[in-house]
Amino acid sequence: MKTKDRILLKSLELFNADGERNVTTNHISAALNISPGNLYYHYRSKEDIIFALFQAYQASMLTSLGVPTDRVLTYEDKMGYLEAIFNQLWEYRFLHRDLGHLLEESQRLRRAYREFAREVMAQAYRVYAGLREADLVILEEHEARALIVNIWIITTNWASFVTSSGFFGDEVALDRNHLRRGLVQILSLEAPYLKGVAREKLPELWRRYELGEDESRPTPSQSVELGGLTD
Amino acid sequence: MKTKDRILLKSLELFNADGERNVTTNHISAALNISPGNLYYHYRSKEDIIFALFQAYQASMLTSLGVPTDRVLTYEDKMGYLEAIFNQLWEYRFLHRDLGHLLEESQRLRRAYREFAREVMAQAYRVYAGLREADLVILEEHEARALIVNIWIITTNWASFVTSSGFFGDEVALDRNHLRRGLVQILSLEAPYLKGVAREKLPELWRRYELGEDESRPTPSQSVELGGLTD
Repeated sequence: MKTKDRILLKSLELFNADGERNVTTNHISAALNISPGNLYYHYRSKEDIIFALFQAYQASMLTSLGVPTDRVLTYEDKMGYLEAIFNQLWEYRFLHRDLGHLLEESQRLRRAYREFAREVMAQAYRVYAGLREADLVILEEHEARALIVNIWIITTNWASFVTSSGFFGDEVALDRNHLRRGLVQILSLEAPYLKGVAREKLPELWRRYELGEDESRPTPSQSVELGGLTD
Repeated sequence: MKTKDRILLKSLELFNADGERNVTTNHISAALNISPGNLYYHYRSKEDIIFALFQAYQASMLTSLGVPTDRVLTYEDKMGYLEAIFNQLWEYRFLHRDLGHLLEESQRLRRAYREFAREVMAQAYRVYAGLREADLVILEEHEARALIVNIWIITTNWASFVTSSGFFGDEVALDRNHLRRGLVQILSLEAPYLKGVAREKLPELWRRYELGEDESRPTPSQSVELGGLTD
C-alpha cells in the first residue's frame, strides 16, 4: 500500500479509537513508523487528512445509495441501503462524534459537508421514488421530504445519542451492535409507508435489529424504566 | 434581581450569542460590570455556571411535559407540549450546539444529562399514554418507544442539522423561525399515529410550520434541488 493511503488508514483508526481531538500528526507518524516530514510531504496538516477521510466517506456513502437504471428496486436493495449506510457510519464514526467542532474548524469541510448533505438527501429521494415505483412504499411528496430529513438526522446522530443518553447503560463505549440498533429507529420512521413484502417483513426485521439477533445483544437499559403503554 | 441570577442570565445570553467556548468568566463579569472575584463568589468555575443553566433547562423542560391528573389530555395540550419544547430549545440553544464537547468536559454534566434524557423520555411516554387515552393517537408499545427516541433525537439535533446541512442556505445564522420549522419534522414523525381532531388538524398545522405562517418565512433551499416524487 502507498504511504499516502497508509496514513489515511492509520489516521482513521486512531481518530475512531481515541477521538480526533486527541490525535496529532505526530501520533500518526509515530504509529506508522515514518518521520513527521514524510507525513507532511503527503498531507500538509491534520485538517488535510480529515478532509481526505471525509471525501472517502462521502464517495462510499454516495456509491452505496446508487439506484440501478436497468431494473426496478427490490426489497433486498432496500435492506442493502440501510445496512450499507450503517456500516459506513461505523467505519467513519469519528466524523459524527464531533462534527460541530470539525465544521467550526474548517470552512472547506463546512462547504463540502453541506454539499454532501444535499447530495445524499437528493439521492435518498431518488431511492424512495424507485421504491415507490417498485410498489414497496407509498408516500406523498411532502411526506418523503420530511421522512428523508428525519432519516438523515437520526442516522447521523444515532451514535452520539447512544453515548449521551445512556441508552445502553452508563458510560458504555460505543460498539458496532449499538450502532446497528439504530436501524430499528429507521425502520420505525419508514414503517407507516411500507407496502407489500417490505411491510410483511417488517415485524421480523424489527425484532432482529432490536434484539441484535445473529449479533451480540445490546439491551436498552431504558426499557426497564418505561411502564407499559396500556397500564 | 440577585447577582447570582444576573450571572446566569448574562451567561446564557453570551453563550447563546457567541458559543460557550468563546466566552470566559472574565467576559461574563465584564459584561455585568462586576469583579471576577464577585463572580467566583457565586460560581467557582464556568462549568458551575453551565451546570446551573443545564439544571434550569431541565426543570423547565420537565415542567412543560407535565400531564394533568384531573382530566384527559386535549389537542391543545398536545400542541402546547411541542411549542414549549421548541421554545426551551431556543432559550438554551448553546447547550445542544456543542453538547458532545460539554459532556466530555464534565462528568457531573454527563451523569445529569443521562438522567435528564431518561426522565424526559419516560415523561414523553406518559404523555403518549395520555394522548392514547384521550383517543388522539393510536400506537403500540414498541411503536411508542421508537417514536419517542426519534422525537428526542430530532428535537435535540434539529439546530445543528440546520446549520451543518445548509437547509436554509449557506452559512445562515440560526434564528427562531429556523428552529420552529423543526416542528414539521416532529409532526411527520407523529402523523401516522394521529386520530380524531389531531389527524384532522394535521394538514393545516403542517402548512403553518412549514411555511412559517404568522412568522417570517424561512424556505428550505433544498426544495429546489429535489425533483417531483411522481416524475
